[in-house]
Amino acid sequence: MARLEFFYDYGSPYSYLANGRLPELAARTGAQLIYRPMLLGGVFKATGNRSPAAETIEAKRRYGAVELSRWVAHLGVPFRMNPHFPIDTLRLMRAAHAAHAQGVFAAFHAAVYPAFWALGENLGDEAVVARVLGEAGLDAGAILAAASADAAKTALRATTDEAVARGAFGAPTFFVGDEMFFGNDRLDFVERALRAAR
Amino acid sequence: MARLEFFYDYGSPYSYLANGRLPELAARTGAQLIYRPMLLGGVFKATGNRSPAAETIEAKRRYGAVELSRWVAHLGVPFRMNPHFPIDTLRLMRAAHAAHAQGVFAAFHAAVYPAFWALGENLGDEAVVARVLGEAGLDAGAILAAASADAAKTALRATTDEAVARGAFGAPTFFVGDEMFFGNDRLDFVERALRAAR
Repeated sequence: MARLEFFYDYGSPYSYLANGRLPELAARTGAQLIYRPMLLGGVFKATGNRSPAAETIEAKRRYGAVELSRWVAHLGVPFRMNPHFPIDTLRLMRAAHAAHAQGVFAAFHAAVYPAFWALGENLGDEAVVARVLGEAGLDAGAILAAASADAAKTALRATTDEAVARGAFGAPTFFVGDEMFFGNDRLDFVERALRAAR
Repeated sequence: MARLEFFYDYGSPYSYLANGRLPELAARTGAQLIYRPMLLGGVFKATGNRSPAAETIEAKRRYGAVELSRWVAHLGVPFRMNPHFPIDTLRLMRAAHAAHAQGVFAAFHAAVYPAFWALGENLGDEAVVARVLGEAGLDAGAILAAASADAAKTALRATTDEAVARGAFGAPTFFVGDEMFFGNDRLDFVERALRAAR
């Protein structure tokens, strides 16, 4: 079975858009979808790259906003530019690893992404994260406690370091074997690679 | 009839890839394809942008080379990274306007793009340009003489200024009415805009 690795950060809007398309893509291609939560800020720091939102060239920044709106309209997904953006996602991404270790990653993931990019919640605020997780029926206290422990910190750092070592410079980044693909707009190439890998 | 404006520079490899796809796209959508030769270097200078080939972030530059190879393979077009790249295209882009004024743009365009990106010719060298145009049955002397005259210089400057004023920051850039699209990888969005404009 071909493996599709999805390196993402909840703070990346294009990762959100890609995320919604991945389960069907994996089903169509018979691929195993593997979530790899990383710290995008760490990737930027390691590579010297920066967020498209921090684009200094005015024409590119203006076009970037148009592009995002077009993708949202094209995909027909619920989307609201998070009013708290950019959000420090360090604790949230550690919590993703903690949720994984506790066997509740799927419910965590399903709760966090819409809260971030459809509801515009401030997920840099731990109280808001606790509320969102609680509303999804998760044990927020247990997840957030584990998110502050060494195992989650180490796991997030390792995933981020691995992404950088394999060539990532932004999010979303996909791997099919050693082949790297960057961006929501490369899922057609990802799909062809998965079909070729079967 | 919807109009599809194609702002390009012969020195842009992704403009070359897009160029090969445009006639069929225009035919499918019933759009009028309008070639707008601009000076990409002038666009970069005006906006502060730079060539992807001058990317300073190593991971992005490495990925950029992989991406280009993937697009070439996917589209199945003859392509050879021009060994003289980057080439100063100022005179060549002026010559495109001169060829247009002389009513031989189609033959000029059909000769120049493959020479640049399939054959790897040094089209920054006027003698090479003259040979390529001559082999295509064009009056190279007349075109190159006109390319040095004020009309061609003014036309190129005006097209470049217009592109920047309308929001362009790179090539290829497409317009469907006032809607701008950047990149060979946005031709699917261009196509949808053209269908919507009918």
